[in-house]
Amino acid sequence: MINIGVIGYGYWGPNIVRNIMETEGASVSVVCDKNEEAYQHLKKLHPAVKCVVDAEQVFIDDHLDAIAIITPVSSHYALARRALESGKHLFVEKPFTKTSQQAKTLIKLAREKGLLIMVDHTFVFTGAVKEIKQIIDSGGIGELSYYDSTRVNLGLFQHDVNVIWDLGPHDFSIMDYIVPLKPLALSAHGISHYEREDEDIAYVTIYFEEKFIAHFSFNWLSPVKIRDVMIGGTTKKILWNDLAIDEKIKIYDKSVHFGKVSAEQRCELLVDYRVNGMYSPKIPQAEALASEFAYFVECIENSRTPFNDGEAGLRVVQLLEATDRSIKNGGELVNL
Amino acid sequence: MINIGVIGYGYWGPNIVRNIMETEGASVSVVCDKNEEAYQHLKKLHPAVKCVVDAEQVFIDDHLDAIAIITPVSSHYALARRALESGKHLFVEKPFTKTSQQAKTLIKLAREKGLLIMVDHTFVFTGAVKEIKQIIDSGGIGELSYYDSTRVNLGLFQHDVNVIWDLGPHDFSIMDYIVPLKPLALSAHGISHYEREDEDIAYVTIYFEEKFIAHFSFNWLSPVKIRDVMIGGTTKKILWNDLAIDEKIKIYDKSVHFGKVSAEQRCELLVDYRVNGMYSPKIPQAEALASEFAYFVECIENSRTPFNDGEAGLRVVQLLEATDRSIKNGGELVNL
Amino acid sequence: MINIGVIGYGYWGPNIVRNIMETEGASVSVVCDKNEEAYQHLKKLHPAVKCVVDAEQVFIDDHLDAIAIITPVSSHYALARRALESGKHLFVEKPFTKTSQQAKTLIKLAREKGLLIMVDHTFVFTGAVKEIKQIIDSGGIGELSYYDSTRVNLGLFQHDVNVIWDLGPHDFSIMDYIVPLKPLALSAHGISHYEREDEDIAYVTIYFEEKFIAHFSFNWLSPVKIRDVMIGGTTKKILWNDLAIDEKIKIYDKSVHFGKVSAEQRCELLVDYRVNGMYSPKIPQAEALASEFAYFVECIENSRTPFNDGEAGLRVVQLLEATDRSIKNGGELVNL
Amino acid sequence: MINIGVIGYGYWGPNIVRNIMETEGASVSVVCDKNEEAYQHLKKLHPAVKCVVDAEQVFIDDHLDAIAIITPVSSHYALARRALESGKHLFVEKPFTKTSQQAKTLIKLAREKGLLIMVDHTFVFTGAVKEIKQIIDSGGIGELSYYDSTRVNLGLFQHDVNVIWDLGPHDFSIMDYIVPLKPLALSAHGISHYEREDEDIAYVTIYFEEKFIAHFSFNWLSPVKIRDVMIGGTTKKILWNDLAIDEKIKIYDKSVHFGKVSAEQRCELLVDYRVNGMYSPKIPQAEALASEFAYFVECIENSRTPFNDGEAGLRVVQLLEATDRSIKNGGELVNL
Repeated sequence: MINIGVIGYGYWGPNIVRNIMETEGASVSVVCDKNEEAYQHLKKLHPAVKCVVDAEQVFIDDHLDAIAIITPVSSHYALARRALESGKHLFVEKPFTKTSQQAKTLIKLAREKGLLIMVDHTFVFTGAVKEIKQIIDSGGIGELSYYDSTRVNLGLFQHDVNVIWDLGPHDFSIMDYIVPLKPLALSAHGISHYEREDEDIAYVTIYFEEKFIAHFSFNWLSPVKIRDVMIGGTTKKILWNDLAIDEKIKIYDKSVHFGKVSAEQRCELLVDYRVNGMYSPKIPQAEALASEFAYFVECIENSRTPFNDGEAGLRVVQLLEATDRSIKNGGELVNL
Repeated sequence: MINIGVIGYGYWGPNIVRNIMETEGASVSVVCDKNEEAYQHLKKLHPAVKCVVDAEQVFIDDHLDAIAIITPVSSHYALARRALESGKHLFVEKPFTKTSQQAKTLIKLAREKGLLIMVDHTFVFTGAVKEIKQIIDSGGIGELSYYDSTRVNLGLFQHDVNVIWDLGPHDFSIMDYIVPLKPLALSAHGISHYEREDEDIAYVTIYFEEKFIAHFSFNWLSPVKIRDVMIGGTTKKILWNDLAIDEKIKIYDKSVHFGKVSAEQRCELLVDYRVNGMYSPKIPQAEALASEFAYFVECIENSRTPFNDGEAGLRVVQLLEATDRSIKNGGELVNL
Repeated sequence: MINIGVIGYGYWGPNIVRNIMETEGASVSVVCDKNEEAYQHLKKLHPAVKCVVDAEQVFIDDHLDAIAIITPVSSHYALARRALESGKHLFVEKPFTKTSQQAKTLIKLAREKGLLIMVDHTFVFTGAVKEIKQIIDSGGIGELSYYDSTRVNLGLFQHDVNVIWDLGPHDFSIMDYIVPLKPLALSAHGISHYEREDEDIAYVTIYFEEKFIAHFSFNWLSPVKIRDVMIGGTTKKILWNDLAIDEKIKIYDKSVHFGKVSAEQRCELLVDYRVNGMYSPKIPQAEALASEFAYFVECIENSRTPFNDGEAGLRVVQLLEATDRSIKNGGELVNL
Repeated sequence: MINIGVIGYGYWGPNIVRNIMETEGASVSVVCDKNEEAYQHLKKLHPAVKCVVDAEQVFIDDHLDAIAIITPVSSHYALARRALESGKHLFVEKPFTKTSQQAKTLIKLAREKGLLIMVDHTFVFTGAVKEIKQIIDSGGIGELSYYDSTRVNLGLFQHDVNVIWDLGPHDFSIMDYIVPLKPLALSAHGISHYEREDEDIAYVTIYFEEKFIAHFSFNWLSPVKIRDVMIGGTTKKILWNDLAIDEKIKIYDKSVHFGKVSAEQRCELLVDYRVNGMYSPKIPQAEALASEFAYFVECIENSRTPFNDGEAGLRVVQLLEATDRSIKNGGELVNL
């Protein structure tokens, strides 16, 4: 039985605690939060779980195998460091850290201590993302051409974080998981409409090796909620609408081919459009967090390195850092 | 009766000829095209119209009041210049010219000759765009915050023109018509996936005065056709789906307001989200080209300057030129 | 504090218990179910609630003010009768009873005992249905013309109940709540595709006074889930898609008017189609069951008769009974 | 070259004439209409076609091989009879005739004269219907279970014809073409909301052999236009949305299977739901009328009997007649 202490019981914490409790081989024995309301809510739902207000009480608890840190990103580094120093495996909310330097320090510390780090890139445990990865890995859409993501909605404005740091960790971690190519450089644009510095609308373009391009649209001022990703390959294309009740994923058998053109015919474009049907696979419905914690337990018990480890967390933080730099320099291309 | 000669009877030419023929007070008496098939098609549909293969026969025709140039952009300047020199009013396909210098020369020439230039920004004559302009001009969505456009589909790859020059003139001319603010600078990103230089996917961001931002997504490799524009205002937002059969335009009564925060409360975000209903106005269904040619006739007869004149054409060409410069310099911000 | 005993803790029971527990002024002190698994589930979520296997223990419990019966319809009458006889207010799952005679007996018994009956017509407590009723009651769509409902999905086949008795209570109770007109006669058609007698596809037409017509489509063999209701009025029409995330309700300002035609013009149809915009109001999102139990408490405390009382339950059962009779006689029109 | 005379140049006539003119091997040499406006319109588009006001001039024209009758249904019989008597093949608008007796007389006459009758069931020539027929004929959805059709919109109210006679010929002819089973009996319900007798909303249920059921929803008072057909088979289901721009047809790999249940387990429903993905085939886009006239020419030249012959027309008229009888008797089941 993996015994887990949870630090932070705000918006996302209750989901974390409930899912760990429902995971076979895992249990939450202590939760830390300074908020009185959180304390009451926890007592009602999980009367057997101990509540503390001082995180140190979690770190020194010898019965714990792992600590889950579900707090705002600004506090991640200090808490995660203490967790690792106290010999506990680490589960940490996304984004992993505020800076890539912090991430590297934590990765090194965990390696020295023989501890595991898992970053909560929840989306990569959804049925939809797993299905897409499997299709792409098996060559189902040919060679990759582009990744085009739109994640927009009204609010919720975050304090001290812009729209990229709020919404981007989802998309960057999904793309990092799905796309097996190396990003080379990034450009970001954005604007803030209110008397605050943090952008509420932003666009990010990432250039990859092999002529692959990724683009992300983030917007806190959209009247509608959109969660669309389009992924192009040389033979097929994928459309993923995460808000669709059914048919979340559609695979289009459509492609473009260029013929060889002789010198004399140079003024003619020999383009061949192949347009066939569309297939929408059945996506198993399972709560991603449940799958993620089963995997967390499995990795700890078998001393396996999870794919959403500190390195994956670091790669996402590096992209976020690069967007900061680019956006401050008018969209300047930042090498990765 | 405004007598019009048409040069170019390819993909778009037949629509032009048909619409002029159906316009009260206008008529086509001569069409120029070198293609034998075009000739046959024209003879069948419009047996009374004269067909010529040499454009010069159109320019010297004393019975013509105006000449419509419906050819690829590379030939616009030379043909338009001859048309103006020969004393004819000018209707020219979009984009106006290949370079802003050419556009300026034509504008100057027309002014000297007392002739009218109309650039075929067809979309600004649709019921949807007219409705949106009216809503915005009357303050219906408050102060403008953003313009976010997606125009993607599979193909059609154009020869010697990238996806921005192909699809962008539509969106830039719509935005230019709707948005009463001044663009300051532009950044463009794109990539070409085939053995040709012209980009098949591209993204353009335009910064305006008054914290207004515009963004455009162009893609010739999309499996689906999308024609979406989202326009944000401080009080309401507009969603325009031009492919919707009904309810092309939706106006959302949703907005975000920030409260005043005292120094002590700085760590609290006082955000107020106002979320009310959505209204979709009835859009009159009328062919845009018919409306455009009625306006063309009206402007000639009353010596009025059309809003889609050479200056409007020039502004669109300046944006296109700027995307070329930016895209060649890795998305560099280009001042407008 | 209204103290409630719950009989039946299967598919729907847990929602009932959770919602009562979250209702101010109400509490569940005892739950009866014979199933061991239900027992475990209840203990985990509500450790303070007493579990019994014999319903009689609930009936004789003097601390209870009311009893909620959440069992299959075949057991409703016997259990409800005992609940009323033991002096408890009654909350009962829909459909109220198997026969209208049973319903009448229970209504009479409750009246004699001064007890309240509430039938769980949950849908009439949703934001969407409340909004629709308010629009119609305020004359917002003119005089009513028709009600057209589609409720289809794949399965779930019910044991000993056909598709009308499974899905119909939702729609009949909604229509009964919304439509202020008197139904006159009913016709039902259906078919069973498997080796069982109960229909898996059925259609019901109800004729009302004032030329109002209602039609219901039920289907357990549909590949997709549909929850659509269209309501026509003389001036406007409502479209309610209960599966839409946003814009569940759309109100169309469209209508048809006939002109007066003189004898000579009889061959001419003077029809005037008024087609204006569409409005989609904001629907408050609240759990219907929570609202229903708050109302249950309010009705008990203030000795008020709920609108979803035994009479409302009876009217729904009468429609269900009539569909049985009609379907067995080849769709014969059954007077109501 | 098949020379065709067209009688009736109203709403649908121009499409007929244009499509015949574009059909290889066919031509229109004369059109008959009493309306002056129709005459002008025809002269402008087809200057070489002769216009007459007296239908007799068409019948006696020795140069004609066939006559197309594109007039209201009330005039079909008399005109079609004269056409056949004058030795011309017959193309006639749907519905074939006002009564099945008229249809039988025409069929007999044509057989005696060795002439061909084709009824304009245009929809069976669309890519979507052809695709569906091919899927079903090849066993692609298993044995047929149901056909559920919705054809609703605002207006257009027809003079002297109810909504079934207006919209039903489309759906009855499609179903007749697709479904290889024999209809046994029919029930129809409907209502008229205005001071006219003809129903503006109607529902039709048809019982077939082999437990197959079909249902049709017709409505002239709907605020939205819907063209949906759902076809159920034992292994798969088809959803056809004729208004969809792409993905008109979706084939769902979903089915329900019942297990064998022993006597003791009778209270348990052993239902197995198989739920897999969805496939949407590419539908070739071609104008149905063009395909229909090519087939008309082919049938005449090769003396073949078209599948949309007088017998097909008769079967549709028989269904329409049965709806009249049923609707007048309160939805009484009418044997077919």
